[in-house]
Amino acid sequence: MLLRLAALFAEYAATIDSDRLEEWPDFFVPECLYKITSADNHKRGYAAGIVYADSQAMLRDRITALRGANIFERHSYRHIIGLPLIRGEESDGVKAETPFLVTRTMRDGTTDLFATGVYLDRVREIEGRLLFAERIVVCDSSRFDTLLVIPL
Amino acid sequence: MLLRLAALFAEYAATIDSDRLEEWPDFFVPECLYKITSADNHKRGYAAGIVYADSQAMLRDRITALRGANIFERHSYRHIIGLPLIRGEESDGVKAETPFLVTRTMRDGTTDLFATGVYLDRVREIEGRLLFAERIVVCDSSRFDTLLVIPL
Amino acid sequence: MLLRLAALFAEYAATIDSDRLEEWPDFFVPECLYKITSADNHKRGYAAGIVYADSQAMLRDRITALRGANIFERHSYRHIIGLPLIRGEESDGVKAETPFLVTRTMRDGTTDLFATGVYLDRVREIEGRLLFAERIVVCDSSRFDTLLVIPL
Repeated sequence: MLLRLAALFAEYAATIDSDRLEEWPDFFVPECLYKITSADNHKRGYAAGIVYADSQAMLRDRITALRGANIFERHSYRHIIGLPLIRGEESDGVKAETPFLVTRTMRDGTTDLFATGVYLDRVREIEGRLLFAERIVVCDSSRFDTLLVIPL
Repeated sequence: MLLRLAALFAEYAATIDSDRLEEWPDFFVPECLYKITSADNHKRGYAAGIVYADSQAMLRDRITALRGANIFERHSYRHIIGLPLIRGEESDGVKAETPFLVTRTMRDGTTDLFATGVYLDRVREIEGRLLFAERIVVCDSSRFDTLLVIPL
Repeated sequence: MLLRLAALFAEYAATIDSDRLEEWPDFFVPECLYKITSADNHKRGYAAGIVYADSQAMLRDRITALRGANIFERHSYRHIIGLPLIRGEESDGVKAETPFLVTRTMRDGTTDLFATGVYLDRVREIEGRLLFAERIVVCDSSRFDTLLVIPL
């Protein structure tokens, strides 16, 4: 299962980093939960999140909005995904916890650390394919001004 | 074995990054060697290290001291562990070499590179569980002012 | 195959980061293609690359030149290799796509992000050993002033 998760996470990251954002919602089940939050808010149990979507349809809307709004030349992003830690395999899916780091490269060529944190996932197998039933993106930083641009 | 090492390293990193430091010594055998050193000192064969502990009890003392001293709000850390390289499986354990990168997020939300380097490990299986007999943390930088705060 | 690729990439990175550059060409088949390019140039289909070598002999020449030219004390580098994504296994080799991040530590102890990007590989098995038939290093940034120093 570790290897299958690793393959899923690698594919997910490559989809975002190569700007194939329209394919991103396909990684989720129709009734999913996707959330970006901060470690502080997560620890305090705040449900809201900075980004919150509880269906694949909302994820699609998000990409449509992003494509419409984004009139400037894009930065590019690079996800480095750490080693997944499987927390349990239950009837509602596999729970895993996986650290990540995302860098951003500006048009002028400078690269900086964009976000670090941990993915808290519940992954289910649907017709032989692994999909996210839940992906909570817990960012180490609480600064979210620019985080809203791309999916993490 | 690669997969088992990957799981061990992921668990180790998650324990530190989620501030469950009291559990950190449990990753080691009672008569262990844990050392943080720099690449320069390691190359020159200096045994001492910046941090040096040759028993699990010393690791526990270290966490107690750290908890007592640490009156300020904590930064948070994120370990990104690279792909492990198995150097040999011998009677005294599996030798592996694994690159790492640690970021630090300050309370104000800024994130920087905290440390990079390589773990030189000797891992033994005790009653079905993998434990560190030796973990030498070789940091690329020789600057250690802040490195003393958390385990790496 | 994912595990074998992971072991290959870990070995490749360790060879560079521990400055055993003379061994670096041994990771390639004699008639290989090694190229460092930028994401922009790659997208536009420019074949040239900033660094271009189409044989193992050229890779060896490159290291010889680098050793000759490099009269200053070396920086050190650390490759963090992400999870490999296998794109297909064909008769001419396994195609894989793997994100990477390289940090550089200066002699004064400061560490920065040196390069991020993705490896586009074609790996072949020759007498039981995996070798690169092709390694295209696509860097996220187009700034290449210092990129020419070490292999990526």
